[in-house]
Order: sequence, then C-alpha cells, then structure tokens
Amino acid sequence: MTVITLLTDFGLRDGYPGVMKGVIWKIAPNVQIADISHAIKPQNIFQAALTLARTAPFFAPGTIHMAVVDPGVGTLRRPIGLRLGEHYFIGPDNGLFTLVLEHAESHGDLIQVFHLNQSSFWLPDVSRVFHGRDIFAPVAAHLAQGIPLEKMGTLIDDPIRLNIPHPEPIQGGGWRGEVIYIDHFGNLVTNLNIIHFNQPKEVIFNIKGEKIAGMVSTFGERPPGTLVALFDSNGSLAISVVNGSAAGFLHASLGDKIEVLTDA
Amino acid sequence: MTVITLLTDFGLRDGYPGVMKGVIWKIAPNVQIADISHAIKPQNIFQAALTLARTAPFFAPGTIHMAVVDPGVGTLRRPIGLRLGEHYFIGPDNGLFTLVLEHAESHGDLIQVFHLNQSSFWLPDVSRVFHGRDIFAPVAAHLAQGIPLEKMGTLIDDPIRLNIPHPEPIQGGGWRGEVIYIDHFGNLVTNLNIIHFNQPKEVIFNIKGEKIAGMVSTFGERPPGTLVALFDSNGSLAISVVNGSAAGFLHASLGDKIEVLTDA
Amino acid sequence: MTVITLLTDFGLRDGYPGVMKGVIWKIAPNVQIADISHAIKPQNIFQAALTLARTAPFFAPGTIHMAVVDPGVGTLRRPIGLRLGEHYFIGPDNGLFTLVLEHAESHGDLIQVFHLNQSSFWLPDVSRVFHGRDIFAPVAAHLAQGIPLEKMGTLIDDPIRLNIPHPEPIQGGGWRGEVIYIDHFGNLVTNLNIIHFNQPKEVIFNIKGEKIAGMVSTFGERPPGTLVALFDSNGSLAISVVNGSAAGFLHASLGDKIEVLTDA
Repeated sequence: MTVITLLTDFGLRDGYPGVMKGVIWKIAPNVQIADISHAIKPQNIFQAALTLARTAPFFAPGTIHMAVVDPGVGTLRRPIGLRLGEHYFIGPDNGLFTLVLEHAESHGDLIQVFHLNQSSFWLPDVSRVFHGRDIFAPVAAHLAQGIPLEKMGTLIDDPIRLNIPHPEPIQGGGWRGEVIYIDHFGNLVTNLNIIHFNQPKEVIFNIKGEKIAGMVSTFGERPPGTLVALFDSNGSLAISVVNGSAAGFLHASLGDKIEVLTDA
Repeated sequence: MTVITLLTDFGLRDGYPGVMKGVIWKIAPNVQIADISHAIKPQNIFQAALTLARTAPFFAPGTIHMAVVDPGVGTLRRPIGLRLGEHYFIGPDNGLFTLVLEHAESHGDLIQVFHLNQSSFWLPDVSRVFHGRDIFAPVAAHLAQGIPLEKMGTLIDDPIRLNIPHPEPIQGGGWRGEVIYIDHFGNLVTNLNIIHFNQPKEVIFNIKGEKIAGMVSTFGERPPGTLVALFDSNGSLAISVVNGSAAGFLHASLGDKIEVLTDA
Repeated sequence: MTVITLLTDFGLRDGYPGVMKGVIWKIAPNVQIADISHAIKPQNIFQAALTLARTAPFFAPGTIHMAVVDPGVGTLRRPIGLRLGEHYFIGPDNGLFTLVLEHAESHGDLIQVFHLNQSSFWLPDVSRVFHGRDIFAPVAAHLAQGIPLEKMGTLIDDPIRLNIPHPEPIQGGGWRGEVIYIDHFGNLVTNLNIIHFNQPKEVIFNIKGEKIAGMVSTFGERPPGTLVALFDSNGSLAISVVNGSAAGFLHASLGDKIEVLTDA
C-alpha cells in the first residue's frame, strides 16, 4: 500500500488534518497515512523544510509527502509536485522543498518539478484559504491511485528556494554554525556535522558562554545533567543535557551561534 | 475500506483514543480510522458539534463518525446512532449532532435516529465512565462490519438539540452575530455567512471596537499584520490577521459580538 | 491485519513517531498502527508502564505493543521483546514492562522474554540516540511479518522491574494508597481498587485534608463541582470532580497519599 505523509502547521485541535484524510481516503481508500507533524510553528517554512528532510528518507520508495505550511495560500504562488528519486512531494511553492531538493541534487537523483495547474484533479470547489484540503490532498490521492504528475501539471525548473544558513570558517581553524532546530526534549540541533571536524574527541565547542570539550557517542557516557555534544539521529551536531533539556539549561534560541574549534 | 472518524475531548496523553482504536480494530480489522480532534475543550458539546459539522461532509459516503464529548456518561442519557443521508454518526444523545441534523434537514437527506439499546453489540463489561471504549467504539465497528443500526437500536424521533446562537437583524440594516469558534491560527469564525450580506466589498464590520471596511478573498491581498474579514474554508465569515492571530490582536473570546452594516 | 501500537515520550512536534511509521510500513506495508500516547513525560518510565498496562488488554490477540521511553538509549541496556499470553511487547529493558509482566503472571499467561540481539533485523545504520526508529520499529515490523522473536533474540529470565508503590494497611482497618496517575480531565487515579474494601457505599476516603463519604457509580449521581470517589474505567479507585478537575480542586500531585477507612 502506498503511504502518504502529512506535515503542516495546522495543529491538532480544529480537525484540519482529519478533513484532509477524509479527502484522501475518498479518492484513494487503501493508502496508509502517516502524520509527521501538525505542530510546525505557524507559517515557519524553514522548520517544516528541515522536518521534512529529516523524516522523508526513512519512508519506502513511492511514498508521497504532503507538506502544507502556506502563508501565501490563495495568491499566485504555485502549487507544485516534485519527483525526487523515488519519492514524491506535494505542496506550495514557497521553499518548503529546498532541503529535499538539495539532498536529491547532492545524490544525483532524478529531479522533476511540476506546476500543478490541472484543476480537474482538485476538489470541485476550491476555497481561497485551505488548499491543503482542496488541492494538495486530492492531488496526492490521485498520485497514489496512479495518475502521474505529468498529467496533473506542467514541468518547471525554478521552484522557490530558501536561503539556508550555512556554517562559516573561523580564522585560525574551526567553524561558526548556529542552532537551527530545538526538539521536544530540548536538544539543540545545529547546522554543523561530521564534515566540519575530523577528530570529534579533540574538538572544543563554544555556545552561549559554555565550553564543551569533546563529543560523546551517547547520553549514557555522562551523568544526568551534564551538557554534552553528540551526533543526533540524522548525523547533525546536537547539544544536549543528559536526561534534561539543553534549551532550558542554556536559555538557547533558534539562531544562537555555536563555534567548533578544531585546533584548540 | 470503511472510514471511522473520532472526535472527543479525551486529549492525546492518556491513551484513551488509542484504546478505542484497539476495540474497533478487534471487531473490524480493515477499517481506516481518522482522528478529527481529541482536543475539544472538556465537556464542550457545542465546540464538538461545530467541528463535526465542518469536517464530516468531506468524507466518503458510508463514513461512520464517532463523537464522544459526554458529561452525562453513566446516567440515563441515551447512546444514539444516526443515519443522515449516506453518513453515520455514533455518540451520546446530548446535542452533539444538532448541526449535522440541521444540515441533513436543510438538504432533504434521509434522517434516521436510533436509541442504541442492544447491549449484545457492546463490550461484555461496560464501565460507568468510558462509553467511548465500551459502547460507541464496538457499535461503530459492528456497523462498519455490516450490522445495520436497526439491529443495534430502536428508532426514536426526539434527539436532544442544542440552542444554537443565530445572528439577529440590526435596526436600519445589517446583522449582529458572534464569534462561535477560534482556531489554532487565531482566526475568529462567526455565525455570519454569505446569506447575511450581498455585497461583500461594500460592507463594514464592527468587532471589539475595530472597524473593517469590506472583505478580502484571500490573505495575500493585504500586508502581514492587517486585520481582514473573509469567508473561511467552510463559507463562514471569519476575522483574521494576515500571517498573525486575530484572537491575539483583538483579545477576542468566544461569544464576542460582531456587527455587519450593509447600508453604511 | 496485525496492529502495532506506539507509546513514547517523543512528543508530536518533531516527526519522531511519524518516522517510526515510515520504517514499519517499509517492512510491513499492511499493518495498522495505533498511537497510544507520545506525551509521556520525558523519561518517565513508570507513567509509560501504567499507560501500557491500562490500554494493551483492549487490543486483539496478536497485537504488537512498542513502548519507547528510553533514557539509557545507546548504553548497554538491552533491547527486549516479550510474548505475554497472546500479546507482544517491544522496547528497552528498563522496567517499562513491569506491570504487563505482573498482569501476565497473575493470570498464568505464557511468558517469554527475549534479548533482541540479532542486528540483521535492525536498520543497517543504528544511531546511538534513536533506537525507536533503528531497532524497535524494524523488529516490531518483522514480527508482524511473521519472523518469530526466537529468531530475533535470545531467551532471558531477568528483565528489569520497577518498584511499584503498593498500598499499606492502616492500623485499625483500612489502607493507605497514593495517587499514581493524573489524567487529562484531572481525575486522580490511585493504586487502590475493589480488593481494598468490600463495602464501597460505607467507606470514607481522606485525601489532601478532604473527606469523601462513600463512592458513586457514575459522575451523574452528584451535581457538577462535587468531589467524588468512583472506580475508573480500569477498576482503579479514582478521585474526581463532576464536570471538573480533581487535580485542580485539590492541588493534587503524583504521590499524594489517600486513606480509605473501612470501619469508620
């Protein structure tokens, strides 16, 4: 069975994700539907792009990923559908797919982007405020039923891209990155990873006035309450507190700078 | 595959919705289950009735909608099952189904209401405090398996109805309605809609001391931060702030009055 | 179709439960997946053990229950799989399964516990921080596909057990128990139940300086706002406020003592 994933900023209170499932199952009764998150901060496209990039690779080939964080709903911004390797992505053209596009490019995957402009595959009455229900859900469901993206849209080559913050080299050795995500446990995910330092045991990290010497492989290497640096489940450098919250401990926010000094 | 939807005030923390899925799938292993919301304010029957009416129509014919907001659980209040057109509804007889009943009446749909009094279709041990698990889930599952409501209950003609707040005409032209729902984005949904004014471009709205001249078709017509009036995805008049929260901006609450002046 | 249930402290914001569904459906495309809760307090093993014991019995024989509250992830703590009667349980060996084990023992059910040490049934790259995705989800999915636990691990007889708080007898008659769970409605679930008093109508309860005389069968027997004692949907003694929150009314916390006086 095909899987459709849902990623939105709709929240779980008002029934918006549920109604999209109704639309999907009306067209494609046998698909499985996986909620990724409906708690993206309202209109935060970058947070959604990051969550999508961190989860999509674990799904089976053929999975259809719907992502709807859509401040431009009802305007001229295009609805788009992407084929990236063996995965499909459906949503508004506002940068949501920047990171999965970069991933596909760096892996040499097949890349096709379509402007979804064939309204015969949408609900008959399209509102100006809820394209998740009226356009994206029916397109995803028709795709699951075997209608190719080619039939539902037109090839384009200029999808919108976000400016992604990249680490900068520090004079004398090392990198200056930043906190790009804070998860439910208070782990600080950064835009640094293994390519920025070769000797994880010997580096020094500076963040919010705290110095962390070396990395650990897992939380259990240090006592509860200790501030540690480790690679998270997606290979990103993360700052954590064992059995606690690094966000709380450091009063950290998105965008906070982190330095890794490799020759210290 | 038949779809069963779930709408409750149970929250997502304690496992109450999950256990209902266990009961359903034990009886009807192949049904799809869509969570609509489990974040209805505890015991708020009207909020649930509204959410049900706004989501149910988007599901396929044959869908079974379970709604359990049930302050009278364990008392003599009746468990009921409704057939309204091609949709089914299961839950306590306390007004939850008022709006879907009104919708069916206004559309001339088939209407049948049953008092669910055949305990052979319930779990063997029925608690006095969790009929969602012990009565409504098994009845919904048996219905999905093809047992008709006629076998599980007795026809009645007096389901409980809520008093729904309706707009009142203003002397000199226009209507006075109220805020009946505030969603996750802070949009204020009102009980006014297109039937209350013919010229959406020329009306004036008064709410909480603010005046809004004319409606927009979509958020993108105004800059971020602007207070706007528009029709929401269900055709109700909504007051919103572009990329922001009207509830926060206006310090608005449920029941706040809104006037539409049509000859101003 | 086999059902896999998910119980974690991962939250619903970051996509962690969703990505486990991707891993499961990649291996076992036809299973049903039921979320029990992802809102267990971070690292609170006892809360998860209790929620598991209160929900698992309502699922069909053959159900696979994944529970991942895992402060020791990445250390030497064992991943385990249990067969208890006709149900399966998968998760870390840290006490999570204490209560379902006790239940199986008291019912004379078949009990088998396996150390899951066959990495060929895991994802190829196992992170040190997310075994829910990399070990437990694939093992649960392979089990659903018919691979027996015997093939994925080695029998052990020493799973970790939590110290569960048990009520103590009071001199002169009665028991002193405690609040072990507070649910979404503010109901206080205790570790007392029917075996601790034979005459529910005649007992007196003391909690936080309040005295409650006798039990009710259901909320509707008392007016809104009344503090009542009743058996909850799992047969535990619970303290509630009709249409309100006992936790709020009593300023109650986990561990608060409650006395039942049976000869008063």
